[in-house]
Amino acid sequence: MRVRIFDTTLRDGEQTPGISLSPAQKLAIAERLDRLGVDAIEAGFPVISAGEAEGMRMIVSAGLSCDICGLARANRKDIDAVADAGATYVHTFIATSDIHLEHKLKMSRAEAAERAVSAVEYAKSRGLTVEFSAEDATRTDRSYLSEVFSRVAGAGADRIDIPDTVGYSTPSYMASIVTDAVRASGLPVSVHCHNDFGLAVANALAGIQAGAECAHVTINGIGERAGNASLEELVMALRCLQHGDTYETGVVPELLYETSKFVSRTVGVNVQPNKAIVGDNAFGHESGIHTHGILSNPLTYEPIGPEMVGRKRWLKVGKHAGLHGTVAILREYGVEPDPGQSRVILDRVKEMGDAGQLVTDVELLSMADEVMGKGGVRSLVKLTGFSVSTGIGTMPYAFVKLEIDGKEYSDTDYGVGPVDAALSAIQKITGAASQLRIKDYGLASISGGSSALCEVTVLVADSSGNSISAKSVGEDIVTTSVRAVIDGANRLMLKKVTMRQKA
Amino acid sequence: MRVRIFDTTLRDGEQTPGISLSPAQKLAIAERLDRLGVDAIEAGFPVISAGEAEGMRMIVSAGLSCDICGLARANRKDIDAVADAGATYVHTFIATSDIHLEHKLKMSRAEAAERAVSAVEYAKSRGLTVEFSAEDATRTDRSYLSEVFSRVAGAGADRIDIPDTVGYSTPSYMASIVTDAVRASGLPVSVHCHNDFGLAVANALAGIQAGAECAHVTINGIGERAGNASLEELVMALRCLQHGDTYETGVVPELLYETSKFVSRTVGVNVQPNKAIVGDNAFGHESGIHTHGILSNPLTYEPIGPEMVGRKRWLKVGKHAGLHGTVAILREYGVEPDPGQSRVILDRVKEMGDAGQLVTDVELLSMADEVMGKGGVRSLVKLTGFSVSTGIGTMPYAFVKLEIDGKEYSDTDYGVGPVDAALSAIQKITGAASQLRIKDYGLASISGGSSALCEVTVLVADSSGNSISAKSVGEDIVTTSVRAVIDGANRLMLKKVTMRQKA
Repeated sequence: MRVRIFDTTLRDGEQTPGISLSPAQKLAIAERLDRLGVDAIEAGFPVISAGEAEGMRMIVSAGLSCDICGLARANRKDIDAVADAGATYVHTFIATSDIHLEHKLKMSRAEAAERAVSAVEYAKSRGLTVEFSAEDATRTDRSYLSEVFSRVAGAGADRIDIPDTVGYSTPSYMASIVTDAVRASGLPVSVHCHNDFGLAVANALAGIQAGAECAHVTINGIGERAGNASLEELVMALRCLQHGDTYETGVVPELLYETSKFVSRTVGVNVQPNKAIVGDNAFGHESGIHTHGILSNPLTYEPIGPEMVGRKRWLKVGKHAGLHGTVAILREYGVEPDPGQSRVILDRVKEMGDAGQLVTDVELLSMADEVMGKGGVRSLVKLTGFSVSTGIGTMPYAFVKLEIDGKEYSDTDYGVGPVDAALSAIQKITGAASQLRIKDYGLASISGGSSALCEVTVLVADSSGNSISAKSVGEDIVTTSVRAVIDGANRLMLKKVTMRQKA
Repeated sequence: MRVRIFDTTLRDGEQTPGISLSPAQKLAIAERLDRLGVDAIEAGFPVISAGEAEGMRMIVSAGLSCDICGLARANRKDIDAVADAGATYVHTFIATSDIHLEHKLKMSRAEAAERAVSAVEYAKSRGLTVEFSAEDATRTDRSYLSEVFSRVAGAGADRIDIPDTVGYSTPSYMASIVTDAVRASGLPVSVHCHNDFGLAVANALAGIQAGAECAHVTINGIGERAGNASLEELVMALRCLQHGDTYETGVVPELLYETSKFVSRTVGVNVQPNKAIVGDNAFGHESGIHTHGILSNPLTYEPIGPEMVGRKRWLKVGKHAGLHGTVAILREYGVEPDPGQSRVILDRVKEMGDAGQLVTDVELLSMADEVMGKGGVRSLVKLTGFSVSTGIGTMPYAFVKLEIDGKEYSDTDYGVGPVDAALSAIQKITGAASQLRIKDYGLASISGGSSALCEVTVLVADSSGNSISAKSVGEDIVTTSVRAVIDGANRLMLKKVTMRQKA
């Protein structure tokens, strides 16, 4: 069965508190979504602001191949705003649960049904394709809900949608409500699930199995409160898990990861590392048992290959590490300890882990260096001097001194912040001496006071397209950032040396 | 029905790549979990390192009221490690799926079943309560799985567990496999669900509805890859959603939020803002429609009250804002615009939102100030001078000049990082002048190069227990942090003035 993917990242996703997109940003996301292969994009709620209307207009005129929909309450002004923005598809809604009718709308059931019908008729009279949502459907009286769906179908609606507005449904309840809705309306049914109890994807899946042909989803599951059903999870669950039926969508899975990254960068909300499909750890392995399994056959500890969703697998060592994984990582750097040395290195890794410390690849290499003595690993880039200042009435500026392969270099630069200034100065040196560039910079997991640890990740690249990511953890964000870059530069230069030797 | 909560935050949760806890940290988390009311804690995998064994021993001796369990592969050495650490309850496992048998264990089905039986017999001979897991159960041949469960039951196992090791199950498949397992073993059955497709909580729920009496879960859903079923989501779903049956657990919901915060701080992994129950946004509202509903009756847009899980609701303005919410927030600061002024303020909020900018409370207040002229809002704390330096061979040090209520103050301090140094200097001044302290500092969402935006959140508190959080966004992390603190100090002092006027 072909399942329709209705993406509402730009509407319900943007309603996440703290997310605010300009029309140009919305267009950029819409283009990514279209390339990803969604069937419809809910581009906005044009009546609420001039910018929303403009964003809608830009997206409608962009010549995308998917359907472009706009949100409207069940009134003429809202529907006009959608039509006036050039859209031919409106998603109009009115709440139907008693709690919404009594406390928010202060309206009777009969009145709400009447408004729904008038809105659909008006939207049809303006030539629009109409998808009608009964807001808070899952807390609505079941027979009244069927009545509303049947009446909007009679009024000409093209599709109906069942919003689980406060994420209150269970999979079995969603299945039962979908069955009723299909029967009452005779129309294609969508499900719109929220994640307040972590069940959004399961509820959407149950809805589809019960006869819904479309799900409203968002990239990374962003949205009001705990967010919406996440596009990447639902699409991969439909594709990979066995449900008795076979489901297809138009989504290209290989683009999921880059789309997720693009959206999280644009909206400024990162996904947690343990987020399914797109989280940093979704295809990362540390424990010895898992790493051993993965090295024998990745399917032992991965439900799908990471390439399928445009990602790569990574291994890491820590106190749960085993010999296989530790040796595999060292080998990547051309370091080949003998079995005795490997055992000693592994013991040191576990000691660090027991002390509550993280073991980065760079630390693993320096342990190998100590254990293996000469012929182990050497440090090509050393930070020998560094100073940075910032404040009010000044630009942040930095001085850096590096030793690269035994030779000293120094330089200064300024930037928009102290990290930027320091990294620019380093880049001036490494760019000239070894063609290295800092391609990406990320900062995560600071909590617990201004003296807590921060974790910096950088992506360092060379001129021939090789790149490597390095992490550093420390209390001083500026010096931690600088150390991460130095570590990355070191690793990249080591890998180059290893590759040259192997070739 | 009473559902047993088996928490594996300290075992499967700690296997998250990048998480490494010391024995003392493990004990601290175990004490929180016990207070939260879980039935059992899986405290570690003692054979893997000396620290793991020590952590296990400390937790066993802590006199907690819940059961303490240790993990062991199906061999004597691993089981001995659990018993030697003083535990009386072992969770022992062997993989049963063909893919694990062939590629990882290189063992026949018959051999694996034999090992499982021997391990259970040995553990019983050491006097342990035994929970047996068939690793990768959900990809195991169904009749072989039943045979294994039946044989370990015969060997004396006390409980069996069904791990969905790679998160491959759907709710209906989990239900069916649980039904079989109950029949084959005649023992209490647990489900252990991973979240690779976002279905962990739904799968655990389906397992319980099908007859499992226990779920393995972790706080914040941490764990290998996409993590495990999240304790807080499962417990609240069991408690609040209608399933036909009524479920109870021993968990005190009011402690969920502080336990989540404690764990994320200790392990160094933040939850994403749109995480259910414990994410920053789970009870936050921005859009006008939602805020209006919430102000009429919170149940319109919240499935449960935030107090139920130890939290507070918050409102925010942005381009989706409406009049009701905007006025409600201003009123918190004692600012009462007339209807005309409110409209103008709302228009400015929407303009900022359309430009892709966030509207913090502090910015809302300054808009109100401009629109309302005198008698609006005034700024009590102003940053008038600031400079900070860091580098190698120096401690980061800072100079700060503030104007508080028209009077000038300045001071210097040093710290572990430039932010810490600057905040310490500010605290010296505000502590003396107005008894303010910086209680919490968080940094989030930096991405897209070293010149990208960072978002700083601080919690500023006064001596009488009032506290307020403030955010600031900017390119320079140090000055952005300083601005956030100044904003927070301002808001807190304003709130105090308002409260004093109201009292």
